[in-house]
Amino acid sequence: MKKSNKKKNAAVIVIGNEILSGRTRDINVSFLAKWLNNLGVKLSEVRIVEDNEKAIINTVKELKDNFKYVFTTGGIGPTHDDITSKSISKAFNLSYGYHKEAYNILKKYYKSGEYNEGRKKMAKMPTRASLIYNPASGAPGFIVKNVYCLPGVPSILKSMLPGLRDKIKGGKKILSETISVATVESEIAKSLEGIQKKFNKNVEIGSYPFFRFGKIGISIVVRSTSKKQIDMCRKQIVNFIKKKGILNIKR
Amino acid sequence: MKKSNKKKNAAVIVIGNEILSGRTRDINVSFLAKWLNNLGVKLSEVRIVEDNEKAIINTVKELKDNFKYVFTTGGIGPTHDDITSKSISKAFNLSYGYHKEAYNILKKYYKSGEYNEGRKKMAKMPTRASLIYNPASGAPGFIVKNVYCLPGVPSILKSMLPGLRDKIKGGKKILSETISVATVESEIAKSLEGIQKKFNKNVEIGSYPFFRFGKIGISIVVRSTSKKQIDMCRKQIVNFIKKKGILNIKR
Repeated sequence: MKKSNKKKNAAVIVIGNEILSGRTRDINVSFLAKWLNNLGVKLSEVRIVEDNEKAIINTVKELKDNFKYVFTTGGIGPTHDDITSKSISKAFNLSYGYHKEAYNILKKYYKSGEYNEGRKKMAKMPTRASLIYNPASGAPGFIVKNVYCLPGVPSILKSMLPGLRDKIKGGKKILSETISVATVESEIAKSLEGIQKKFNKNVEIGSYPFFRFGKIGISIVVRSTSKKQIDMCRKQIVNFIKKKGILNIKR
Repeated sequence: MKKSNKKKNAAVIVIGNEILSGRTRDINVSFLAKWLNNLGVKLSEVRIVEDNEKAIINTVKELKDNFKYVFTTGGIGPTHDDITSKSISKAFNLSYGYHKEAYNILKKYYKSGEYNEGRKKMAKMPTRASLIYNPASGAPGFIVKNVYCLPGVPSILKSMLPGLRDKIKGGKKILSETISVATVESEIAKSLEGIQKKFNKNVEIGSYPFFRFGKIGISIVVRSTSKKQIDMCRKQIVNFIKKKGILNIKR
């Protein structure tokens, strides 16, 4: 990956004790990563932090200055442990309170009598934030500068991303190709290193062992924004694999 | 959770482009979190970083000073993208090279002739590190001060943790109990907040919506090192649920 892509990089902050306790396994990161890849934005760092105001504020402050896009997931619901909106307000020194448009969206979404205190809390955020609309369950996310605040429930998060697409200005789409081979890493390490050096920053080669369905092998993953570079690199990898007599397998 | 537990907190650094690209979904974090919980150590932060020397060094330097235990996963294999051992050496200003014991372990593990350059690379690490033995596949992890370096392959990582158990000095085991109820968060938010305030730092109450098997509901998770506090807290939650006429469901 070329250094010039650096400004297009993104970070994700996962906010939630349930992930850190091991109770819930995060699935939003891989989903966001692929979605960003398709828009030509590389996810370069993830932090998982506690439902703790200080932790959230410090992390947001640090990452907003170092990445073009920062996404947060989790902590924007109605309960006492949902403190993302308040923490983001504090991180940016913005007033926190009812966001007019969000308040009205939720008012329409719920039948009269159903719009209780808990639900109203979901309209509280930095009062001048832009909204991220939520086709799945009403309560919107929000944007402050380069920080995009999304919910933690995967199905709701997914429903909100299409509405965000136009706001993300990425570079070229990051392409990848996988070559799976029936061998162990140490057998291919040296040749692979040579090829990586040749392609330098134009292609990123990763090597990942797998153990599945009783088979062991290596997935060699080649990533680049250039289809031509990927093709050239794949050819060289396939060549040395053939020379070594290693089986190129389809997974 | 009482503040006095702070010194027993742990952080995990997941090293790997394959997680950040969305190709692979991490499962080590939830496993490590539960394992640490059982030892009375709370996982308080996770960072996922690229296979990039600068990123690894900076993250290790920062976290080693702020947490009692830091675990890294990934990047200790034989290929060019495995740069954890070298990066840790640099983060601690230690000499990097063949670790005598590790070299001999691998020499015994592989048949003569099989101990090639790639495999030898797995014996390269901070030369004076303590080893973490690997009953699954030979190549050891290592410890430098409060930083514990483990592999990324989950089955291998799991095999190495029992050998590490005596090195981790935790506090009381963190207990948890889950109460699942058939309602939505906004219906219970206020009462739950009141109970959380009452129990203050002694109990941590989390609220997590679920959508599964066609049912929707909330899992209320109560965590504490004190069984008595959990029991008292659960009683109060069950009481207000009954009063509200909400169904307490078994999942």
